[in-house]
Amino acid sequence: MAVGLQAPGELYPVDGIRLAATHCGIKKDPAVKDLSLIEIAAGASVAAVFTQSHFCAAPVILCRRHLQAQPAARYLLINSGNANAATGEAGLETAAASCAVVAAAGGVTAEEVLPFSTGVIAEALPLEPIRGAIPRLVDTLAADAWLAAAEGIMTTDTLPKAVSTRVEIDGRRVTMTGIAKGSGMIKPNMATMLAFVATDAAIDGDALQTLLGELVATSFNAITVDGDTSTNDSCVLIATGASGVDLDGGGDKLRNALRKLFEQLAQAIIRDAEGATKFVEVEVEGADSDADARSVAFTIAESPLVKTALFASDPNWGRLIMAIGRAPLGRIDPQRVDVCLGELRLLHRGLPDPDYREALGLAEMRRSEIRIRVNLNLGDARARVWTSDLSYDYVRINAEYRS
Amino acid sequence: MAVGLQAPGELYPVDGIRLAATHCGIKKDPAVKDLSLIEIAAGASVAAVFTQSHFCAAPVILCRRHLQAQPAARYLLINSGNANAATGEAGLETAAASCAVVAAAGGVTAEEVLPFSTGVIAEALPLEPIRGAIPRLVDTLAADAWLAAAEGIMTTDTLPKAVSTRVEIDGRRVTMTGIAKGSGMIKPNMATMLAFVATDAAIDGDALQTLLGELVATSFNAITVDGDTSTNDSCVLIATGASGVDLDGGGDKLRNALRKLFEQLAQAIIRDAEGATKFVEVEVEGADSDADARSVAFTIAESPLVKTALFASDPNWGRLIMAIGRAPLGRIDPQRVDVCLGELRLLHRGLPDPDYREALGLAEMRRSEIRIRVNLNLGDARARVWTSDLSYDYVRINAEYRS
Repeated sequence: MAVGLQAPGELYPVDGIRLAATHCGIKKDPAVKDLSLIEIAAGASVAAVFTQSHFCAAPVILCRRHLQAQPAARYLLINSGNANAATGEAGLETAAASCAVVAAAGGVTAEEVLPFSTGVIAEALPLEPIRGAIPRLVDTLAADAWLAAAEGIMTTDTLPKAVSTRVEIDGRRVTMTGIAKGSGMIKPNMATMLAFVATDAAIDGDALQTLLGELVATSFNAITVDGDTSTNDSCVLIATGASGVDLDGGGDKLRNALRKLFEQLAQAIIRDAEGATKFVEVEVEGADSDADARSVAFTIAESPLVKTALFASDPNWGRLIMAIGRAPLGRIDPQRVDVCLGELRLLHRGLPDPDYREALGLAEMRRSEIRIRVNLNLGDARARVWTSDLSYDYVRINAEYRS
Repeated sequence: MAVGLQAPGELYPVDGIRLAATHCGIKKDPAVKDLSLIEIAAGASVAAVFTQSHFCAAPVILCRRHLQAQPAARYLLINSGNANAATGEAGLETAAASCAVVAAAGGVTAEEVLPFSTGVIAEALPLEPIRGAIPRLVDTLAADAWLAAAEGIMTTDTLPKAVSTRVEIDGRRVTMTGIAKGSGMIKPNMATMLAFVATDAAIDGDALQTLLGELVATSFNAITVDGDTSTNDSCVLIATGASGVDLDGGGDKLRNALRKLFEQLAQAIIRDAEGATKFVEVEVEGADSDADARSVAFTIAESPLVKTALFASDPNWGRLIMAIGRAPLGRIDPQRVDVCLGELRLLHRGLPDPDYREALGLAEMRRSEIRIRVNLNLGDARARVWTSDLSYDYVRINAEYRS
């Protein structure tokens, strides 16, 4: 049950990008797409970040190799239903072979193709269905197929996730459109499950990589469902340059539009989190350092006892105190800590606010969108993360996933 | 639903210890005990460790002060149903006042009384019910009331937890008996929820404190239900000296008996973990350091996706790989990692074992007691932790706790 998540609105084509998606046979249901292809025009810049898992999947290993050899990727091939993780040499060979098929069909080198996979870990990824589908994917590439591509990368997602926006800069229109997938095994570490964003701004490769790092820090690296980092997390940002507007010319307007789009995509993952009945923002301010602020925010966001209280709409703020209390951080003074639910103050300087009443807390907790605010009242650093609650359905979905 | 947890067997009196428990009125049900008193004979040594939470509760603050002023405690007063945490000065005053009442009744100083509380956080602890009950607790102190004391400290525990054992050393009998409570908000950090262990061995205060640190490292600090550290965790070890056997004389036999008793008490908490349907041992060996081994073991033990797979008896070892992959540690070589369920090897040198069959994995996962073994094949360090699964009932219990 998604929380406040709508089907995507209008998705604007990005000049220089074409997409296609199909059912190739990795998933059983023939009505479900499981393979997407994204074509990038020559001359575009491509930046990417990947999971920090020690056990990263074969496609992640191959992506890193290909980007090192040839930073200007021309095709992204993404399958869902199988993660091609913990599959050893055979998995690398399958991923490489699928890149070679795309390269031959598209008239590029295999190193200009980046492979991505998401789905069950530790099962062999079959090459034949992918090989068979690539010709028809190449034949059907279209600038307006963002929604189909978003559908093709879904696993346990209940809705496709895609966001699109346009900004006017000095009389020129800059477009940006992105898709993402993910609803469990979510605590991206330097990247997210899978996200692909393109803009027609003109940004060179190094600047784009730096920009992507900044954008990810406050979006995909600020979300958690269960604290579990996937073997396959990948996020790609493409700048085709077709609009002619560059980063200097675009200024804050371009950056802010991209930042908002990244946040919306990341939040869409949390809104669709497995079993979620609440969308929760945890905001920590007044910390000595960004790391301390993030530590407190993530400890709250990942505490099973906080998450079950959120599910129950129980204003059990003792559990918030417990979570703040166990967060690993440099310095805290319990007698300075303020805690609010939305605008309602629960804890003032480490003690129950005298004006707090249980009925007020209950009213805040019953909302489907909840904001937990902590002020450590020590320094200027802050962090904001988004999370979901822990429900019966989270257990059901993850207890039944393979059956 | 406890997993393989029996009601306590025979609990041997420890010479120098008397106990009593009663219903005083903190909990609503008059049939349920909520206040326990433990009397310690003069001359005994007392060691204690406490929660590392920044928000430690009033009784923890007071215990530390009292032990600093007077290390030889004579009474332990423990209430359940209210944690006296996040209660500020008023909470400290209530705890101090309850110590003073015990001191007056027992003819000792208030600093010789240690207070302990467990239950709901951030509600005022009422003094009057405690004050009213202390005279009858003092009047009914008895050497054979360990079970009553164990019942008096329970909160969401489904069974009282108590272990007792005797060893013969050079013709002299040494007795040790302990009680513990806890089933949620369990990841003690330097201590446990509440545990009180006494022996009639003769061990001086400093040696006892060192010994307690060692015992806790492989027992209460090696368990986790939900990764959540309580504000009130406390563990006390008393050595009355009545047997005349000291640590030098007792040697390994005495240490091993104490170690086993601590492990059994810690495991009892996991067997009774909220909603648990499985008792799970996670053993990591071949790590570069103890810290790395513990990091991998706890990351597996606390992964919601691993825990829901355990609940579902699903041999989804992709989730084990995911958890190992995200563990923060110094060094790992995925191509050296072996993973076993009991004696069944799932992963050999980072790849699926060719002899592994799903049916074999399923048979292992269907057991109520499961052993996950990881060998990093790098160094000699190892760690062992115990945990439970994540079930619908965990969510139910924690979503309904205050209603």
